[in-house]
Amino acid sequence: MSSAELPLPAEPGSKFLEEIREQPDALLRLLESGAAFARVAAEIRARGATTVRMVGHGSSDNAASYGVYAFGLLPHWTSLRDSISLTVYYGAELDMSGCTALALSQSGRTPDVVEYLRQAKRRGAFTVAVTNDASSELAREADAVLELRAGHEQAVAATKTYTNQLAALGLLAAHAAGEGDAFAAGIRGVAETMRELTASVEKRIANVARPFAYAGRMFVVGRGAEFATAREIALKLLETCRIAAEPLTATDLAHGPVAALDPLFPVWAIASDDATLPAVVEAVERAREAGATIVASGDAAESIPGADYVLASPRTGSPLLSPLLSILPGQLFAWALSRARGLDPDTPRGLSKVTLAR
Amino acid sequence: MSSAELPLPAEPGSKFLEEIREQPDALLRLLESGAAFARVAAEIRARGATTVRMVGHGSSDNAASYGVYAFGLLPHWTSLRDSISLTVYYGAELDMSGCTALALSQSGRTPDVVEYLRQAKRRGAFTVAVTNDASSELAREADAVLELRAGHEQAVAATKTYTNQLAALGLLAAHAAGEGDAFAAGIRGVAETMRELTASVEKRIANVARPFAYAGRMFVVGRGAEFATAREIALKLLETCRIAAEPLTATDLAHGPVAALDPLFPVWAIASDDATLPAVVEAVERAREAGATIVASGDAAESIPGADYVLASPRTGSPLLSPLLSILPGQLFAWALSRARGLDPDTPRGLSKVTLAR
Repeated sequence: MSSAELPLPAEPGSKFLEEIREQPDALLRLLESGAAFARVAAEIRARGATTVRMVGHGSSDNAASYGVYAFGLLPHWTSLRDSISLTVYYGAELDMSGCTALALSQSGRTPDVVEYLRQAKRRGAFTVAVTNDASSELAREADAVLELRAGHEQAVAATKTYTNQLAALGLLAAHAAGEGDAFAAGIRGVAETMRELTASVEKRIANVARPFAYAGRMFVVGRGAEFATAREIALKLLETCRIAAEPLTATDLAHGPVAALDPLFPVWAIASDDATLPAVVEAVERAREAGATIVASGDAAESIPGADYVLASPRTGSPLLSPLLSILPGQLFAWALSRARGLDPDTPRGLSKVTLAR
Repeated sequence: MSSAELPLPAEPGSKFLEEIREQPDALLRLLESGAAFARVAAEIRARGATTVRMVGHGSSDNAASYGVYAFGLLPHWTSLRDSISLTVYYGAELDMSGCTALALSQSGRTPDVVEYLRQAKRRGAFTVAVTNDASSELAREADAVLELRAGHEQAVAATKTYTNQLAALGLLAAHAAGEGDAFAAGIRGVAETMRELTASVEKRIANVARPFAYAGRMFVVGRGAEFATAREIALKLLETCRIAAEPLTATDLAHGPVAALDPLFPVWAIASDDATLPAVVEAVERAREAGATIVASGDAAESIPGADYVLASPRTGSPLLSPLLSILPGQLFAWALSRARGLDPDTPRGLSKVTLAR
C-alpha cells in the first residue's frame, strides 16, 4: 500500500467534537426507551423506595448533582450523592430499605461503583444501573437497568454520555411524578434547539477561547440545577485543557474563594432565568470588583452585567431542561481551548476511557 | 497620648495563628456542654428523625462532609449535605418528616442557612442549630441549639470553629449511638495530642511552605472522613494564600483531573490508616508519575512512598478522631505560606467574618 492510500491521522479533538455534535441524536435515542423509565419509576413507587442514593465518579457524579434537583422538584423525593467510601471501604451498616440506589457509570465497569451497588442491594435498597453498556457487570448486578443509548463514546472526556445521564435522571424523575410524557416532549424540543446552538457556538467559540490560551486557573460558578453544569465544565477544562478549574456555587464563592480572585483568575458564570439568578449576579459583581475576566453562559447570560464574553443558550422554561443546553458552550469552549493550547482533547495524557482506579 | 504609647500594629496572621493554637482549649470547652449533645441525640431518637440533613457554607459545609461519616459510622444513620437552593430558592415541597435539619453557621447569621432552617421546620423536620452564637437568629429559630463554644473567632479564615464543628458532629453522632462518653474521652485525648502537634509543626512549617511561595494551583486529596480535611485545607489555601486549590477524593483524581498534573501542579495527600489508604497511595503514585511535588499528611503520611514533604499526625485509632488532628498541618501551612507570599491571613482581601451574601 502506498503512503497515498494510508488513512489520514485523525485531527486532534475530532472525536470529542463529533460526539458533542451527536448529542441531539443521542437524546432522541434515549427517548425511544421511555417505557423502561416509566416501568422503573412505577417499581420505585410500588416498593416505596423513594429516597434516592446516587453514586458515580467524574461526569457521572456531576450528573448526580442534577439528579438531586430532578427528584426534588418533580416527585419531591429526597435524593443524595451518596458516599461510596462509607459503604464500600468503611462497611457502615446503613439501613437502605426505603431507598433506591442509582449507580451511574458509562462503562458499567467502575469497580467501586459496582461494589457499592452490590452492598446497597444487601442492605435492602432497590438497585438501578444507569449505564451505556447493558451487558456490563454493573447492569448484571442491578435489579433494573436504564440504558443510556448514547452510542459508543470514543473521546476520553465524556460529552454525550453526560447529557444522556441528565436526560435519564430527569426522565425517571418525571415519570415518578406522572409527568413523563411532557418531559419527553421537552427533551425532544431541546434536541432540536441543541442542533442550532451547536452550529452557532461552534462557529464563534475559537475567538472566545483564544484569549484564555495562557490561563492557569478558573472558577466556574453555577447554582441550583446548573451547579451540575458548573462541575461538568470545570471537569472538561481540567481534563482537556489542564486548567485548574474549580466549580463553586454562587454563595460558596463569597465564603472564602473570592479572596483568591485577581485579573489573572477568570470566572465562568452560568446564569439561569430562575430564583437562583440574584445570587449568581451578586457573585459575578464581586468577581468583577477583583478584576476577574468574566465568561457568562446559561439562559440568563445576558442578565450578567459587564461580562467580557457571553455564550447564551436559549430559554427552555424549565430549570430541569436548561442544563441540557447550557453545558454545550462549555464543551465547545473546552474543545477550542484545548486545540489553542496544542493539546488533544480526544486523548488527555494519563487518562483512559474506562477508569479502573479504586 | 504620645506615639510611644500607641499599641503596636498586630503582626499579620497573628490572630489566625493564635486561634490555631487555641484549638485544644476550644475542644475542652465544647466537652463541658456534653449534656446538651446527649439531650439532642435522645430527642432525635425519640422523634425518629434519623435522616440528618446538614447545611452550611464554606468551612461549615466542609464540616458537614465529616458529619456524613460520623452519622453513618456511629448510629448508622443516613445523612446528607442538603441542597439549600432546592428548598430556599426553588421551594421544592420535600417531606422532611423523619428528618433532622442540622444547620451549621459559626455566626448564626448566614441568611440562606437561616431561611433553610425555617423552611425545614415548616416541612416537618426537627431543627438543630450548631453555632458559636447561642443568641443568633439561627439559634432563635431552631428547635434545639448546640453551642460550639469555640470563643470569639477574629481571623476571617475559620480554624477553631471548624474543629469544634467536627467535634460537635462527632459527639452528637456518638451520643446517638450510645457511645458519647467514649467519644468525649477520645476528644480529650486528641486535645492534648494537638497541643504537642501544634508546637512541633509550627517550628518547622515555614521550611515546608517556602518552596510553594510561587505555586498557583494545587490538588488536595483525601478520602472518606478525611475528605472533609481535604476540603478545609483547600479552602484555607484559597482564602489565605490565593492558591487555586481544589479538593478531590482519591478516585475523583483518577477520573479526569489527573490529566492536568505536571511538575508545576503540586498535590497534597491526606493518608489515613484505614481502608481508604490504598486508593490514596494509588492516586499519589499517578501524581508522582506526572512529576507533581507531593505533600503527605494524615496519620498514615509515612505510608506515602516518595513524598517530598511529610507532615504526619499521630494515630488516634478512630477515623472520626483523626480529622481533628490532620487539619492542623494544613492550617499551619496556610499561615506560613500566606506570610511567605506577603499576605495577611487575618484579613484576606474581599472577605468579612460574617458572610451575608445570598
